[in-house]
Amino acid sequence: MLNSEFISKSWLEASDDFEKSKVVLIGIPYDGTCSFNPGARFGPEQIRIASKGLEEYSAYQDKSLEDIDFYDAGELDLPFGDRDEVLKIIKNCTKEVIAKDKTYLGIGGEHLVTLPAFEAYYEKYPNLKLMHFDALADLRDEYLGQKLSHATVIRRITDIIGMENIVQVGLRSGTKEEFDLIKKHNTLSLGIADFRHKIEKFGNNPIFLTIDLDVLDPSIMSGTGTQEPGGLFFNEFYEYFASMKDLNIVAADVLELSPHYDPSGVSTATAAKIIRELILRLS
Amino acid sequence: MLNSEFISKSWLEASDDFEKSKVVLIGIPYDGTCSFNPGARFGPEQIRIASKGLEEYSAYQDKSLEDIDFYDAGELDLPFGDRDEVLKIIKNCTKEVIAKDKTYLGIGGEHLVTLPAFEAYYEKYPNLKLMHFDALADLRDEYLGQKLSHATVIRRITDIIGMENIVQVGLRSGTKEEFDLIKKHNTLSLGIADFRHKIEKFGNNPIFLTIDLDVLDPSIMSGTGTQEPGGLFFNEFYEYFASMKDLNIVAADVLELSPHYDPSGVSTATAAKIIRELILRLS
Amino acid sequence: MLNSEFISKSWLEASDDFEKSKVVLIGIPYDGTCSFNPGARFGPEQIRIASKGLEEYSAYQDKSLEDIDFYDAGELDLPFGDRDEVLKIIKNCTKEVIAKDKTYLGIGGEHLVTLPAFEAYYEKYPNLKLMHFDALADLRDEYLGQKLSHATVIRRITDIIGMENIVQVGLRSGTKEEFDLIKKHNTLSLGIADFRHKIEKFGNNPIFLTIDLDVLDPSIMSGTGTQEPGGLFFNEFYEYFASMKDLNIVAADVLELSPHYDPSGVSTATAAKIIRELILRLS
Amino acid sequence: MLNSEFISKSWLEASDDFEKSKVVLIGIPYDGTCSFNPGARFGPEQIRIASKGLEEYSAYQDKSLEDIDFYDAGELDLPFGDRDEVLKIIKNCTKEVIAKDKTYLGIGGEHLVTLPAFEAYYEKYPNLKLMHFDALADLRDEYLGQKLSHATVIRRITDIIGMENIVQVGLRSGTKEEFDLIKKHNTLSLGIADFRHKIEKFGNNPIFLTIDLDVLDPSIMSGTGTQEPGGLFFNEFYEYFASMKDLNIVAADVLELSPHYDPSGVSTATAAKIIRELILRLS
Amino acid sequence: MLNSEFISKSWLEASDDFEKSKVVLIGIPYDGTCSFNPGARFGPEQIRIASKGLEEYSAYQDKSLEDIDFYDAGELDLPFGDRDEVLKIIKNCTKEVIAKDKTYLGIGGEHLVTLPAFEAYYEKYPNLKLMHFDALADLRDEYLGQKLSHATVIRRITDIIGMENIVQVGLRSGTKEEFDLIKKHNTLSLGIADFRHKIEKFGNNPIFLTIDLDVLDPSIMSGTGTQEPGGLFFNEFYEYFASMKDLNIVAADVLELSPHYDPSGVSTATAAKIIRELILRLS
Amino acid sequence: MLNSEFISKSWLEASDDFEKSKVVLIGIPYDGTCSFNPGARFGPEQIRIASKGLEEYSAYQDKSLEDIDFYDAGELDLPFGDRDEVLKIIKNCTKEVIAKDKTYLGIGGEHLVTLPAFEAYYEKYPNLKLMHFDALADLRDEYLGQKLSHATVIRRITDIIGMENIVQVGLRSGTKEEFDLIKKHNTLSLGIADFRHKIEKFGNNPIFLTIDLDVLDPSIMSGTGTQEPGGLFFNEFYEYFASMKDLNIVAADVLELSPHYDPSGVSTATAAKIIRELILRLS
Repeated sequence: MLNSEFISKSWLEASDDFEKSKVVLIGIPYDGTCSFNPGARFGPEQIRIASKGLEEYSAYQDKSLEDIDFYDAGELDLPFGDRDEVLKIIKNCTKEVIAKDKTYLGIGGEHLVTLPAFEAYYEKYPNLKLMHFDALADLRDEYLGQKLSHATVIRRITDIIGMENIVQVGLRSGTKEEFDLIKKHNTLSLGIADFRHKIEKFGNNPIFLTIDLDVLDPSIMSGTGTQEPGGLFFNEFYEYFASMKDLNIVAADVLELSPHYDPSGVSTATAAKIIRELILRLS
Repeated sequence: MLNSEFISKSWLEASDDFEKSKVVLIGIPYDGTCSFNPGARFGPEQIRIASKGLEEYSAYQDKSLEDIDFYDAGELDLPFGDRDEVLKIIKNCTKEVIAKDKTYLGIGGEHLVTLPAFEAYYEKYPNLKLMHFDALADLRDEYLGQKLSHATVIRRITDIIGMENIVQVGLRSGTKEEFDLIKKHNTLSLGIADFRHKIEKFGNNPIFLTIDLDVLDPSIMSGTGTQEPGGLFFNEFYEYFASMKDLNIVAADVLELSPHYDPSGVSTATAAKIIRELILRLS
Repeated sequence: MLNSEFISKSWLEASDDFEKSKVVLIGIPYDGTCSFNPGARFGPEQIRIASKGLEEYSAYQDKSLEDIDFYDAGELDLPFGDRDEVLKIIKNCTKEVIAKDKTYLGIGGEHLVTLPAFEAYYEKYPNLKLMHFDALADLRDEYLGQKLSHATVIRRITDIIGMENIVQVGLRSGTKEEFDLIKKHNTLSLGIADFRHKIEKFGNNPIFLTIDLDVLDPSIMSGTGTQEPGGLFFNEFYEYFASMKDLNIVAADVLELSPHYDPSGVSTATAAKIIRELILRLS
Repeated sequence: MLNSEFISKSWLEASDDFEKSKVVLIGIPYDGTCSFNPGARFGPEQIRIASKGLEEYSAYQDKSLEDIDFYDAGELDLPFGDRDEVLKIIKNCTKEVIAKDKTYLGIGGEHLVTLPAFEAYYEKYPNLKLMHFDALADLRDEYLGQKLSHATVIRRITDIIGMENIVQVGLRSGTKEEFDLIKKHNTLSLGIADFRHKIEKFGNNPIFLTIDLDVLDPSIMSGTGTQEPGGLFFNEFYEYFASMKDLNIVAADVLELSPHYDPSGVSTATAAKIIRELILRLS
Repeated sequence: MLNSEFISKSWLEASDDFEKSKVVLIGIPYDGTCSFNPGARFGPEQIRIASKGLEEYSAYQDKSLEDIDFYDAGELDLPFGDRDEVLKIIKNCTKEVIAKDKTYLGIGGEHLVTLPAFEAYYEKYPNLKLMHFDALADLRDEYLGQKLSHATVIRRITDIIGMENIVQVGLRSGTKEEFDLIKKHNTLSLGIADFRHKIEKFGNNPIFLTIDLDVLDPSIMSGTGTQEPGGLFFNEFYEYFASMKDLNIVAADVLELSPHYDPSGVSTATAAKIIRELILRLS
Repeated sequence: MLNSEFISKSWLEASDDFEKSKVVLIGIPYDGTCSFNPGARFGPEQIRIASKGLEEYSAYQDKSLEDIDFYDAGELDLPFGDRDEVLKIIKNCTKEVIAKDKTYLGIGGEHLVTLPAFEAYYEKYPNLKLMHFDALADLRDEYLGQKLSHATVIRRITDIIGMENIVQVGLRSGTKEEFDLIKKHNTLSLGIADFRHKIEKFGNNPIFLTIDLDVLDPSIMSGTGTQEPGGLFFNEFYEYFASMKDLNIVAADVLELSPHYDPSGVSTATAAKIIRELILRLS
């Protein structure tokens, strides 16, 4: 090897020491069920590059990436044309993370990839809950004739844990059936106060946090497959995020960054910042 | 013909049945008096494509395009270099819509195209009022030596119905003369409460609703000829829109989407969503 | 309906008269097996819009779209997540075109869509040949574990008709196995003279012409999933095209236009021009 | 004023000394008759900025802008909505340039602006010839019902001087009528050898040189309203340009740069380089 | 010269009369210490072009550029590779402005250029204060081994006047050391009410106002080197701006517009509007 | 570590085995002396991502990356503001590569970075020659008052080895002084035949090959700081490249890819392909 100093090809300030790291970043470059605007497969690698432009220190949390160890495992190698095999690989990888007593932080990729990671955690924590940030409900029972799709992923999870064990934020688009389900089970947070109220029921139970970036308003997050106006501004998002400070989040993912729709780079920079906050939060 | 199933070349879920449809979408690809940033001529065709990415269902109104009939007539064929002929064609077309007892929903194109459609409706409704969303006042008496221009269109309408029969929302740019006129006649809404107060005077009179998309903040609506910061966010816009639920809107248009200035596609998606809401509202 | 004159929502100068039309344009918005740069699904609709900017008249062929009848059927409605069903639908649609004694002109979409259309024509013409323009060989036996993929499509066709019944132009990227196959069977044209020599063997047999637009140099055709420098310039391409004037081309497709990678619009305009020339050639 | 040294707001190395300058650059920000892709109005100002990135020295001509005086007059102030007034202003301005014994170098703007400048020179030189570089013939007698349009401009000039006094380069798109006219009068150069032959007839007569930048291939000149593949590459263009070295060019213009379609900046840089060569040639 | 009327190559409505002008715009095309996203060097020239799209009249201040005189000096000619010489030139130029009894309005360029202008004003006003709008603290003592950098500029100014003489708005990114300093000296405004309170201490003392445009949220200001979500929206910014109406602002600058990251043009238009408001405010 | 399979964060098919690798890729993200269009600092990381889209096999050389070992060291960590220190670090790193008996393949970054690498090799090979592909001569003695700059780098190298030991390809822009020098020493290849003649003098001496990507025509290589039309097309470039097959190239670099000016991605893909060919050539 060379003694010269090189910039790491990993995330900003990521550690080379897997053993000492608590959080493990896993890139999941998959968007195979995406029916309208593909491109989330390019999310993880562009977020990694954008991470070099971040400050290590977060004034929000008064913590710095320099003071912790986390590990950037890179992108999973996925057989693009075979959805079921893709899901199996993600599940196995998540199980490995769990077995090594690390915390999974997935970087998508489309939303379907949450399902196998959730399943892996559910095997460990039968009382696992879901915290769901999104513009779309993703509660369809079927989409384009498929049971497993980015548009059905939360429904598949509620098949496992029931509608009573999820809380949702930011939803503003979906079918009548999905919104009827949401109303019936009162899963959708109507503002920050309602959110604080809803999360009380989670108590100290383990929580899987899934963030579809389109929960943010497209003025700041154009780089995603579904550009749905009327979303959260960044500071609103952060207020929700900060409200969860006493929750027991055991794993998380950040999904649907699609760089093609981000010609200015703002969406990618915003995704990187959110992940920085998550790394600091989970460590 | 072929029996194979094809995606409609019309707006999402538009009906093939003109007779059963109440709302008729008319694309008006004209930007001939535009002095600064041209391109609104490309608005209608790109909005149509973006409409395919929308959900049919609106959670805002709890209604779906699938449950109604509306007709997408396509884009008018306009003799580009001859403004007066263009205006005549739009007026005649609007009269046809009126004669068939349909509701006109124009998709611009620049703002001048509102004038002939308004005139056609005024011939039917002498008590017609104007509801005007815009960043600019469009109240000049003349612009670059022309009486008929995107910058004079509202003035021409008030020549017909008087300043007392319009309500304006979102204006933040114009000449001193225009703002003096606005103040004198108190046409500009100062927030949502003031808006609700101002529209009381409209009672059940017929209203022509004209929406220049630059009323929205350019953070969400960069794709327009006049990018004027300080505009409405989408949720604010929707609050105004929802406030009109008891008004008697008889025709509407949505104008000035200029796709060249929308590299991320967010403006076009937002325009399509607003038109979906209007179709549901007017049906 | 309205009497006002509207711009057709179909291809420039396309006829409304299916019966009188010889050529039928079929859009195929599918890119489901694309492993690197998706987006060809958006090709057909953007090419249609760009067609409005073309002259009807071709100085190359001294013929005009105004003098012929052709039909724009629109885009096929495809179940995105189910590749095999997609292929079946394309095949059935092609059979319908054949049954009505029309000429199929497919507009992709990714290259895999050539297979079902070829199969349909092969059922009619057991002596069918293939003329293949491409940057990549597409001769793999398997790709990412799949037998049916944009990277295996020509191999599947040669499984049917043998390597001796294809002629290839423009190939410059592939695996060693593919190039060994090409050399062994001498399918690749080494310049225009060699091409003229190679096509002699086709005689008057029916030919399916498939054009992957990446055969063109990316300086003029950036808007495609595989940007492979060293391709044909437009005038070189046209020389090949003109050389085929005595061949018996019975069907054709034009594939892999991916508008996301075409920020200037040149690729889309070029694709539209090539299709205009094909319509004139096939009518 | 300030003594600090400022970068000139004018063209690279333009002189402040009008009297000493031979060539006068006139920006003409007009695209009012453009029917498809507007934006040439923004050409002159972006070319000026791009000129700062050029070398002053031309290795082609072994001459430098530093050794000559030329004057950048800026952009004409044009009443956008009034085509006839626009043409009058350009004509008057050109007459002024002629009266001061300077050489007019117009920077468009759309092609129609050549007409008034040509007319002004024709008043001085009744034996004036036209050298025409273009992708389109611009020889229609009428376009969209207008006699004066970017698509009729060369026809209007030949109304004055006859088809026998023009030579054309690069044409590849137009109507059948236009190409019939071209063939009848044999105005189109078929390669560089034919061009050298054709220009012999010009002898030492005064020539107006008009360059529509779309004569170049869109691979290098995407930034123009008509992207027509099959055009000249830069070195081919320069060979034509160099071939004119003994001709008596008395005025010139460079037209149709439309920066919206030039996201990489290459077209604008190329336009600036061509203008540098013209300045050096005309001085 | 020519009698024809030309559009000014200067800022919209800028005066030719230096003597009568109070405000002098100085473009500073320098970004030499920028470590991440360069390009602010192109800010001044693109803002100048965008200024032509503004209205002269401000409805916010009920004042118009037509009623005042201000002077656009153009861009300083800076020896790019020599930072120290660059700073000296800016300082000398500012001194000239002061000597002529004009008001300096710098248009950047990166933030380091504030230092020499501040120093020049400090020589005149030993009681000079600093009003600082920014996303980043810029309070590092050293950055990449350099004492003079865009990331240290405010620290260098507080070396002169002390932390007690600055007020900061919008900061949301920096190092722990910077935020500790900010907290210790309570320089950061926590909302508009706190801002109004903090500026009371300035009284009628002379103030240098420096605006790094990244203080705005990247939804409206993507065109800057540091895209930091969570910033001020335009109307919030304007509220701060309006709150300063009784302050004694003696000089100002507007910095870090980087057009490469502004594909829609919104950032550049917003920067131009802010400068219009500043010109009106300072005149 | 995890057993799951991840896509390498290194170049396509790069080996993890430094010892077995012959070629070592070194990214050099520096563009500090760039005076016009910065951004080459982002070249190495985007080329690495684009490399994943390449085939491993080269049909040109009938060789595959899968059959060789090469090492991707990543990007050097450079103190951005300190040019002299940057040059020292590059030189030391190159010496390390030499000491380990590997072949240096630098990926820029701006052209100045060639100097320290050349110096390191010159210490080993006093008879070292330079092969120089570029649009610009880079032979100035000083640029903006600096001796060490991207515009002087080849002059500095000829200060060491003399003008008689370089061969140049593609130059088309520079100062009169540079072109006088070129003519005097006859360093510039006038076509491929002349090139073959010129390189004969190199015999079997060791050669440093430096490729400024702007040697290519901007139609294919817009993504570079100097967009100079009239350059080599890819196939022409490759013909030069292939002509060197018997030369003793001991090190190489590929420079000046600036992704900001490559909105379609073609330039980055082309750069990656050239580097693939170089890796195969040097292994």
